[in-house]
Amino acid sequence: MEMIRLDVKNEGKFAYDIVIRDSFDHLAEELKKLQVENRRICIVTEDHVASYYLETVREKIEPICRETHSYIFQEGEESKNLKTVNGLYEYLIHHEFDRKDMLIALGGGVVGDLTGFSAATYLRGIDFVQVPTSLLSQVDSSIGGKTGVDFEAYKNMVGAFYMPKLVYINTSTVGTLSQRQFVSGMGEIIKHGLIRDKDYYEWMKANKDKIMARDNEVMAKLIEGSCKIKRAVVEEDPKEHGIRAYLNFGHTLGHSIEKIMEFQLAHGECVGIGAVLASAMSWKRGYITEEEYKDIVTTFADFSFPKLPETIDLEEIVKETRHDKKMEHGSIKFVLLEKVGQAAVYRDVTEEEMLSALQEGRAQA
Amino acid sequence: MEMIRLDVKNEGKFAYDIVIRDSFDHLAEELKKLQVENRRICIVTEDHVASYYLETVREKIEPICRETHSYIFQEGEESKNLKTVNGLYEYLIHHEFDRKDMLIALGGGVVGDLTGFSAATYLRGIDFVQVPTSLLSQVDSSIGGKTGVDFEAYKNMVGAFYMPKLVYINTSTVGTLSQRQFVSGMGEIIKHGLIRDKDYYEWMKANKDKIMARDNEVMAKLIEGSCKIKRAVVEEDPKEHGIRAYLNFGHTLGHSIEKIMEFQLAHGECVGIGAVLASAMSWKRGYITEEEYKDIVTTFADFSFPKLPETIDLEEIVKETRHDKKMEHGSIKFVLLEKVGQAAVYRDVTEEEMLSALQEGRAQA
Repeated sequence: MEMIRLDVKNEGKFAYDIVIRDSFDHLAEELKKLQVENRRICIVTEDHVASYYLETVREKIEPICRETHSYIFQEGEESKNLKTVNGLYEYLIHHEFDRKDMLIALGGGVVGDLTGFSAATYLRGIDFVQVPTSLLSQVDSSIGGKTGVDFEAYKNMVGAFYMPKLVYINTSTVGTLSQRQFVSGMGEIIKHGLIRDKDYYEWMKANKDKIMARDNEVMAKLIEGSCKIKRAVVEEDPKEHGIRAYLNFGHTLGHSIEKIMEFQLAHGECVGIGAVLASAMSWKRGYITEEEYKDIVTTFADFSFPKLPETIDLEEIVKETRHDKKMEHGSIKFVLLEKVGQAAVYRDVTEEEMLSALQEGRAQA
Repeated sequence: MEMIRLDVKNEGKFAYDIVIRDSFDHLAEELKKLQVENRRICIVTEDHVASYYLETVREKIEPICRETHSYIFQEGEESKNLKTVNGLYEYLIHHEFDRKDMLIALGGGVVGDLTGFSAATYLRGIDFVQVPTSLLSQVDSSIGGKTGVDFEAYKNMVGAFYMPKLVYINTSTVGTLSQRQFVSGMGEIIKHGLIRDKDYYEWMKANKDKIMARDNEVMAKLIEGSCKIKRAVVEEDPKEHGIRAYLNFGHTLGHSIEKIMEFQLAHGECVGIGAVLASAMSWKRGYITEEEYKDIVTTFADFSFPKLPETIDLEEIVKETRHDKKMEHGSIKFVLLEKVGQAAVYRDVTEEEMLSALQEGRAQA
């Protein structure tokens, strides 16, 4: 596979590269560009990912830096909190990590968000590198500098905008993902097409079978396409004052469902369900046609997305959105489709509208 | 008193104003410029400061914003940790603070650092305003965007660079400081003169009696002078890659003493002791004359600084510096005086040199 390199700017200046390869073989040469020879590096990861990739990555890094360390926490959203961050701070302090040292986030979204936040706040900020191993983190969470952890039951309540120094994507890691994790990543990818790029969305549908078979060449193209969309959005609006909010398409109701289901569904699965619901609202408002809406329903079904869970209380979902952090002075910033391939933020979405879309979703289930 | 307004730039662009007045009467008009009418404001403070100023400040703010809240924690360095931050996060969540809302840090350095860090990390960053009430925070910690809390026994281990939207200094609050707090602030002020501005240092000595009497006019001039020095340093080097380290003059040994004394001495008192010790090292290296060194010893004594505590183990102080976060790859960045009014960073300071300066300090005590 040819190398793909995408440079990402922050406030007009070069910030970091996204490098897409099909192995870890080029990680050392990319890290060398960051002058790591006299630095300590701590690979932060979770136990499941560690069992697959930690030794491989460690072997690549050990010859090129001063010391290689690893900090492994328990897999899962339950670890994404300040307790795990405190454990990492302790590890770094006791191993005398200073401002010149570096963290590598090896894993999915939880690892990347947590490691990024720790890097942003340890000694007021040390360098970190994203090595995302889940499809979701490769196309979405590793790019753009959003870092954070959950607080009590609230997702990403504590965090910082803090840029990595490099995002290194090894597409072959997609091969070891569970079907659920794979589908979860597809949630963000389909979302990218729907909010920003109709051609990409159509290409995805046309290549559905190869994507579901995780064909190497097609996956590299898929990941590149999605990274480009994410890059364009975060470059235009790094701190979510404007269009970056489009990336929350599917997230308002998705988050509520995720929380009520107590994280039994994966994040991207909930985003997929939420995207279908937001599409229903876009149709009912006359922004997209019924045909386009049905096509979106079919597409998510084709990519093996779950339906709205049968047991869930629809009014509870709506109620949950009131706590959503995207609430601003009482009016939710709700992302809908103006048309297929173009999102917009609406502040006039009512709870009745949400409920009506949820009833439509239930009828489809 | 005439208003003093100093604008502070961050990476070349206007970031915030420092406004110096002799009452809280103009706080509301400064806040109005930040468009607060539809925003919730939470005044974060500690119990001692609250008893003096919370009601006055609340009365000024209440008419001009959407809701006024307050979060009060227990006075002292022992509160400067993630537990207090978590309590503040909880308060903000339960009162539905969103990204458009604002925090005001009303108090000394602990309040400012902790509130700033909370603002930097709540929902990935909300606005905050510094209203420093101690001399130390007015001339030093409220300016420049360093925020943070202690972690275990390590000072400022967790933090972020995050700029306030305004620093509002009411010089009359200096009147309610204890003698110890006042002296503590003078530690940073004398330091500013020594590292950057000999004329300011000489002016201070000439106005010693009025300063110690906390004369209004002289205090305003003193604070303005120190704010200008701090501003010049942080504008040139916002993230402490270079000359901002000069501000750590007196801090390496000062921090060690502060920690070994278990915070029985105030921060600025320890900085003063550390500054005298660093001056001794500068003299022994031949950078300043013996006369200049003796003058520095006399100046700190004239401003009522304590001597090096008699009971403290000198070797323990040196040992403690090994953990100092300014350690970089094993060599401490030690700030010495090249001459009076000009600091420089040295990486070749040995433990023997520190011990020798400490023995000199003990002989003076």
